[in-house]
Amino acid sequence: MDTTYQVNGMTCGHCVNAVSTELTALPGVTDVQVDLATGRVTVTSQGPLNADAVRAAVDEAGYDLAEA
Amino acid sequence: MDTTYQVNGMTCGHCVNAVSTELTALPGVTDVQVDLATGRVTVTSQGPLNADAVRAAVDEAGYDLAEA
Repeated sequence: MDTTYQVNGMTCGHCVNAVSTELTALPGVTDVQVDLATGRVTVTSQGPLNADAVRAAVDEAGYDLAEA
Repeated sequence: MDTTYQVNGMTCGHCVNAVSTELTALPGVTDVQVDLATGRVTVTSQGPLNADAVRAAVDEAGYDLAEA
């Protein structure tokens, strides 16, 4: 399943890599696609994601998950 | 001695790290200070730096050295 998030503060390819690395490390995540221009992040996972874990991963990368 | 350069295109702390890492690896360089807001990069070295090597290092990091 795919879940789409909005991440604020990414400015360059390094930012994209940081966010992708943290989200890819979450249990069940099989793919992460980031659109730098829009901040839209699509996470592909084997099942529903824990929202707090996603938020914590984005925070760990140094960015903010926008409120849905 | 300190030499100051203008580097274009840095947008975040990851960019600063990338430029710093490449410049620090140059022979004779003992310190690199980057001001993200202005793009000003101050390189401290034991002697005069090779301009082509500095330009190549900045390019390797993925950014552009502004013309003096």
